[in-house]
Amino acid sequence: MVDVRPVGYVIGQLLAVFGLAMLAPMMLDLWEENGHWIVFLESATVTFLIGVGMALACANAQRARLSLQQTFLLTTGVWFVLPIFAALPFWMGATEARIVDAFFEAMSGLTTTGSTVFTGLEALPRGLLLWRGMLQWFGGIGVIVVAMVFLPELKIGGMQIFRSEGFDTFGKILPRATQIAGSISVIYLGITAACALAYAAAGMEPFDAIVHAMTTVATGGFANTDASFSAFGPLVQYVAVVFMALAALPFVRFVQLAAGTAQPLLQDSQVRLFFGIAGVLVAVMVGVRLLDQGQMSEAAFRAALFNSVSILTGTGYASADYMQWGSLAVVILFFAGLIGGCAGSTACSIKVFRYQLLFKAIVMQIRQIHSPHGIFAIRYDGRRVGPDVLSSVMAFFVVFVVSIGVLSVLLGMTGLDFTTSLSGAATALANVGPGLGDTIGPAGSFVSINDTAKWLLAAGMLVGRLELMVVYALFTLQFWRR
Amino acid sequence: MVDVRPVGYVIGQLLAVFGLAMLAPMMLDLWEENGHWIVFLESATVTFLIGVGMALACANAQRARLSLQQTFLLTTGVWFVLPIFAALPFWMGATEARIVDAFFEAMSGLTTTGSTVFTGLEALPRGLLLWRGMLQWFGGIGVIVVAMVFLPELKIGGMQIFRSEGFDTFGKILPRATQIAGSISVIYLGITAACALAYAAAGMEPFDAIVHAMTTVATGGFANTDASFSAFGPLVQYVAVVFMALAALPFVRFVQLAAGTAQPLLQDSQVRLFFGIAGVLVAVMVGVRLLDQGQMSEAAFRAALFNSVSILTGTGYASADYMQWGSLAVVILFFAGLIGGCAGSTACSIKVFRYQLLFKAIVMQIRQIHSPHGIFAIRYDGRRVGPDVLSSVMAFFVVFVVSIGVLSVLLGMTGLDFTTSLSGAATALANVGPGLGDTIGPAGSFVSINDTAKWLLAAGMLVGRLELMVVYALFTLQFWRR
Ligand SMILES: [K+]
Ligand SMILES: [K+]
Repeated sequence: MVDVRPVGYVIGQLLAVFGLAMLAPMMLDLWEENGHWIVFLESATVTFLIGVGMALACANAQRARLSLQQTFLLTTGVWFVLPIFAALPFWMGATEARIVDAFFEAMSGLTTTGSTVFTGLEALPRGLLLWRGMLQWFGGIGVIVVAMVFLPELKIGGMQIFRSEGFDTFGKILPRATQIAGSISVIYLGITAACALAYAAAGMEPFDAIVHAMTTVATGGFANTDASFSAFGPLVQYVAVVFMALAALPFVRFVQLAAGTAQPLLQDSQVRLFFGIAGVLVAVMVGVRLLDQGQMSEAAFRAALFNSVSILTGTGYASADYMQWGSLAVVILFFAGLIGGCAGSTACSIKVFRYQLLFKAIVMQIRQIHSPHGIFAIRYDGRRVGPDVLSSVMAFFVVFVVSIGVLSVLLGMTGLDFTTSLSGAATALANVGPGLGDTIGPAGSFVSINDTAKWLLAAGMLVGRLELMVVYALFTLQFWRR
Repeated sequence: MVDVRPVGYVIGQLLAVFGLAMLAPMMLDLWEENGHWIVFLESATVTFLIGVGMALACANAQRARLSLQQTFLLTTGVWFVLPIFAALPFWMGATEARIVDAFFEAMSGLTTTGSTVFTGLEALPRGLLLWRGMLQWFGGIGVIVVAMVFLPELKIGGMQIFRSEGFDTFGKILPRATQIAGSISVIYLGITAACALAYAAAGMEPFDAIVHAMTTVATGGFANTDASFSAFGPLVQYVAVVFMALAALPFVRFVQLAAGTAQPLLQDSQVRLFFGIAGVLVAVMVGVRLLDQGQMSEAAFRAALFNSVSILTGTGYASADYMQWGSLAVVILFFAGLIGGCAGSTACSIKVFRYQLLFKAIVMQIRQIHSPHGIFAIRYDGRRVGPDVLSSVMAFFVVFVVSIGVLSVLLGMTGLDFTTSLSGAATALANVGPGLGDTIGPAGSFVSINDTAKWLLAAGMLVGRLELMVVYALFTLQFWRR
């Protein structure tokens, strides 16, 4: 049986910090004198006290090293427990959300999915809007740390190719995570600040600039208004495109860039492929719009650019209702959401490097068919990639697609139509945000779907954000047996 | 450079036989005195002469053994060349089809897909209806031979696990194919005859019984009327369910059964799983209909049973417009079409044994994650399955899904809507037949879609029927280089 106390100790500590973080929206609501601050004080108190209590209760089992099982439990545990407490302000606050809606919104925030069940966002107390932004921002950096430290060690979905050389001894995952989080968070904060300044310079008011910077850099997609980015001018939208793209790059490259070496960023093959895919996608979408309308205004170009990048990076902002762009645009954007950004970014979905490896694996298959006794070496960015990594990536893809299928059927069982079920499953598992169709499309909202579907989608977000296998591994008997 | 003449020799021979086969619908139209027989005489003459010519031209390069490259070329070549000639009667005959429609129908027939571009089938000369049935029937046995002899040797999509022990020396593929075709064809003919007799006993008129028996045993799905199986009574529909299910089982088991050993059939794990899946699917569909209607008539039960089995086996007959059954039924049937039957049957799609192996591969992945240094052996029906087979199956799945995605986008580019594009791509690649939506759904027809989409779908049928890799391998430089 796994000793869960070391896991409880870490989650307790994180919860306590999370409780303290709720003081930021509290201060804002105090400053705004809207009387809503009490909600955050209460939420903060509950979260902080339970966190401290949990940490203290588990303190005697504190370990410097976590076992493999405990690492799995910790990763899933954080993304399961934090949303429960993150939901408190939505449940008790001005949104007066029911438990399912509050939890959905919190999970959508912390997984950087960005699907929202709230409407009339403009009228919400600013503390709540800030809290939504903070959830995505925390989720974003959490995901980078998971992608850089946890997934490579847990050998999830081929992420082991990103295992850093100097870190071979298993068990030091917590000190390593703290160290990485430290070095990344400076960059993360820096990019967020740059994004906020750029938004402000482009004409956003300061509060919106800060919150949208948070949800941009996290490729989260929560906006402060129901109109999402259609509420903002051209310059703001171009700024968003730049920062959405930056947020989909591996953050470790920015750390290296800050240290003075641009080489790793420029030579990273997934970065190049990402920009290649983005270029092709935007060109195709511009072409589609041009054929559709017969001419191309700057506004039409910008709409094609903005929404393509938004979906490809899994951010999920909308600057137009692209459901009106004809079937081809819809089909393309559906599959673009299944591509995603680079590993080690805040972007989600299957990710560019997996497609690279899948392509190599399939080419190797075909070569193997031709030369049954040939031995073929596969390299990725100069490093040799073993067959175990390729299997791991292919298994990830299979599990991802089968999960979309199963989740679609489950959503269908709750009464959603075909397009809503399928695109809802995909958008949740890929943490994109908007789905297709009138209900959950860019012009729709998740508010109208039934509660069971909301629980299912929230589960899908969690599973997708943790690259599926981390969560699924917990459901094996083998996991608990020893 | 590959010597294509030995391939031409075999295809030429097959073409000559194919030309002779056209004499059957000619005789029927002669007998019916509808004046349509001349079309088949002309088609037969052209096909026979070109076939004989091709065989003679290549006869000097006749080889007892085919190289790997030649085997690939032969498999794809047969399914590319035969439809061209199979299309002649549609192009010249009473259907007066344009080239694209004639080729689409012929490809749909020979790949046992069963999507049709013709309406008013009742009014067609019976020779043409017989020809459609014969195309599927030939396609069905062709596919069994490919699945039993070619794919295991070519190591396509994990089919190497069905390599028979006594057949290790490569190169004897043609004698082996002839031998297998011989032993299978007796059984195939027997089951078809049994099916026709059962249909006739259940009330079908003899001609319909024979043609529908051909398209049932081939899991093809062409029917003689626009109304498909809704034109027939309950008993006929139950008979169809039985034979569709039989046609989705591995035919080698029937050979063994005929030889007196029922054990292999009863102990085949994919057979068991197939019936398990069919049982669950039918139960769920019946449940869905019950919840929807509040009560269950025999007719409603039969409709749920018939259409579930029809889609799961990839036959594609419709006895009701299940697009009217609510979104859940649609979602379930969409994914059911991606399951398919057993390897070595006439059924298509991803197939049950691949899901078994995918499941095992993923379980192994998770075990590997838990015990990084563990060695795990995977067994399938008692035989050890190597990591290369699992890779091959996973690669197949990835290629299948990515192909659906790419084909969907291409179909979207021709102007089809999201549901039609996606379900059209899936139904073509999985050789099921009907898609979803009003256009190509069970109550629609492929006649109204644009020509580019028809070509794309026909290509999808070919690629899907030959388990993708056989065709894709031809597009690698490596293939042609030596
Ligand atoms: K998102
Ligand atoms: K079919």
